Amino acid sequence: MRILLVGAGGVGDSIVKIAANRNFYELIVVADYDPARAQRSVDWVTDNRRDVAHRFIATSIDASNSQNVAALVAEHKITHVMNAVEPKFVQSVFQGALDGGANYLDMAMSLSHTHPTDPFNTPAEKLGDWQYDRSSEFATKNLLALIGTGAEPGISNIFARYAADHLFQEIDEIKILDGGNLVVKNDAGEEIFAPSFSIWTVIEECLNPPLIWEKDRGWFTTPPFSEPEVFEFPEGIGAVECVNVEHEEVNMLPRTMKANRVSFKYGLGTEFINVLQTLHALGLDRIEPVSVRSQAGRVSVAPRDVVAAVLPDPASLASRMTGKTCAGTLVTGTGTDGSPRATYLYHVADTEWTNEHYGSQAVVWQTALVPVISLELLASGTWSGTGVMGPEEFDAKPFLDLLRDDYGQPWGLDDRDPQNPGKL
Amino acid sequence: MRILLVGAGGVGDSIVKIAANRNFYELIVVADYDPARAQRSVDWVTDNRRDVAHRFIATSIDASNSQNVAALVAEHKITHVMNAVEPKFVQSVFQGALDGGANYLDMAMSLSHTHPTDPFNTPAEKLGDWQYDRSSEFATKNLLALIGTGAEPGISNIFARYAADHLFQEIDEIKILDGGNLVVKNDAGEEIFAPSFSIWTVIEECLNPPLIWEKDRGWFTTPPFSEPEVFEFPEGIGAVECVNVEHEEVNMLPRTMKANRVSFKYGLGTEFINVLQTLHALGLDRIEPVSVRSQAGRVSVAPRDVVAAVLPDPASLASRMTGKTCAGTLVTGTGTDGSPRATYLYHVADTEWTNEHYGSQAVVWQTALVPVISLELLASGTWSGTGVMGPEEFDAKPFLDLLRDDYGQPWGLDDRDPQNPGKL
Repeated sequence: MRILLVGAGGVGDSIVKIAANRNFYELIVVADYDPARAQRSVDWVTDNRRDVAHRFIATSIDASNSQNVAALVAEHKITHVMNAVEPKFVQSVFQGALDGGANYLDMAMSLSHTHPTDPFNTPAEKLGDWQYDRSSEFATKNLLALIGTGAEPGISNIFARYAADHLFQEIDEIKILDGGNLVVKNDAGEEIFAPSFSIWTVIEECLNPPLIWEKDRGWFTTPPFSEPEVFEFPEGIGAVECVNVEHEEVNMLPRTMKANRVSFKYGLGTEFINVLQTLHALGLDRIEPVSVRSQAGRVSVAPRDVVAAVLPDPASLASRMTGKTCAGTLVTGTGTDGSPRATYLYHVADTEWTNEHYGSQAVVWQTALVPVISLELLASGTWSGTGVMGPEEFDAKPFLDLLRDDYGQPWGLDDRDPQNPGKL
Repeated sequence: MRILLVGAGGVGDSIVKIAANRNFYELIVVADYDPARAQRSVDWVTDNRRDVAHRFIATSIDASNSQNVAALVAEHKITHVMNAVEPKFVQSVFQGALDGGANYLDMAMSLSHTHPTDPFNTPAEKLGDWQYDRSSEFATKNLLALIGTGAEPGISNIFARYAADHLFQEIDEIKILDGGNLVVKNDAGEEIFAPSFSIWTVIEECLNPPLIWEKDRGWFTTPPFSEPEVFEFPEGIGAVECVNVEHEEVNMLPRTMKANRVSFKYGLGTEFINVLQTLHALGLDRIEPVSVRSQAGRVSVAPRDVVAAVLPDPASLASRMTGKTCAGTLVTGTGTDGSPRATYLYHVADTEWTNEHYGSQAVVWQTALVPVISLELLASGTWSGTGVMGPEEFDAKPFLDLLRDDYGQPWGLDDRDPQNPGKL
């Protein structure tokens, strides 16, 4: 397996570090718009895993240019393009892999477009639709695009598949629930507002109309922050207010899995929801530039870019953050024994541990972990396929076994009261 | 009286329109950085009050340049400089009047500087300190600087003085309370977030440490939004959450009035407080420029300027706004009859009325009303003095009589339960 990793930001860097502990690949070309950033990741391997350092190369790439991606595929005889850049580059990287004749993986999918007149009821283009529409192009070339294989989407899909295969005879609802108790402190030890993921992406996810799927109704949308509920997360995280947000799983799982309802809830917490609602009420989430006075005369900036500029860079937070993040899937229905069942399957990452071992904060590291394992399963042939597929289309057990036994990452399974599955 | 009005923004324009109904001046030179804006105000007089139009001239001015102010004073033989620009130009306009040999008036005072190490306990330079320090320079030239003579500070000070002279034998506390029920709707009829005053100034007022004065302690500061209380405003406005904010009155009244405590509370309402706290938590209130990506490359903008840019221009809101604003002073202590007394003295402006009659929204119009009456009292010699003085240093009764009888603006006086003065 010869991998082109596109993007050496927080997630890309963690992919390098996690992969450097494994042995399933022949080459990883680390490519970034900023070649120095790619080199930093490769230097870490040189410093920490000298035995595999010769398998890593740093180079530069323009992820917005599919020809540039295809050229690197050809130059390095790449078999798998691992996309780790912002979702707005999904189409060009995906197309570049296809044109270059390589398999493709990502952790976030092509962006959605809201319905022009009925945004809070009717979906228009959903997350990943653009990619699913090109499945036959990959299949024709005998190539696989494994999309949405990060933490969420990714391990959340794998948990759903595991539940369907091993825990349930009939599934009523699949509800992805993501939450944590991460806290960032400033130098004075005071808690500060600092999202652990790009605020740009967080706003995109949270202010877009949430997507829900129901068997009888198909896909539909709601206003932002709908159906708030308090869910108790495991391992000491505790109760967090969760709301519906737009997320890939809802477009993925109903394609091949049987259920009555699929939804995604994000444990934003009351404070974060308030911040996002305030930004939206003021128009500070907008991406259309506004004219602003400056010492250099009037300039044109997108308010959302200004919000991103005033907040701490998520990549810089690792050492100032404490707490855990939990990616998981609540499945309800009829268990294999015929009785009502509600099970929350999850993986928790502790940010002090990830920072100590990888210099990464937990959300970023957890996102990076899943594609590395996916690549390893593809390398060994345990997972195989062609066309555009999600991780829920592969056997979940070898993934979860590898995760626990070889990557040393336990995952959990909480059976809960089917009448009140939000309570631990 | 020959007046140089510096600034033809919302307040300056209203000063022109209110003054055009009166007859106490020989000349008003309307000066703005943008001469077209000054001309618009003068054109309104030509169109609506042809009889006095010959007394108005439009010209341009750089309010940041005291020599420019002094030159206009000389050119037009100005007797009174009326400052109606942003507080950051107070020093240059004030100095220009002094240098040119003219009397001076303003509605907001020189800016404060917070204490470098103990901002939430200890005041450093207070609002207006810079001006009070120059009192003898005005007095030596036999000139008056009547500072803080708008709505608040201004009519609030006059109410305090009236209460001291006519309603109380001993004052315990003077608490200025400003509140309203103004609402702005968009074209679809939905309520939108749109401050009725420059967001730049609102942030400055509300996020600076509030100033409080106590007889035994002197001036001290607190963290923002301290001592929240719900106060019921009169004339249908109703209950509004009010918090301490930094305001001029607290530096003004204790200089010449007897009381145990002086404070200022702003009826921001729960939603607005939340917005300001969120902006502050994210750092979007900052005035130091940050580097932001843009289509023209990286640019440098102050986050607070971006917030101002995304919000509707307060000057554009008049026709979309409904509701009332109330400027008033709650005085508690021992009444003239020797029994406990709590009286709220106030003036209310209804924004639909001010818009219909003056094309101004209520807050701006109310601010403009007070200096015009002050100028009229100075022109008639009813008020006179030298040095730097606040409106509370003049007899309040002729002001309030003129307000009611000649300007047709009733003012109110609510006697309240001394045990619970927040309730109507």
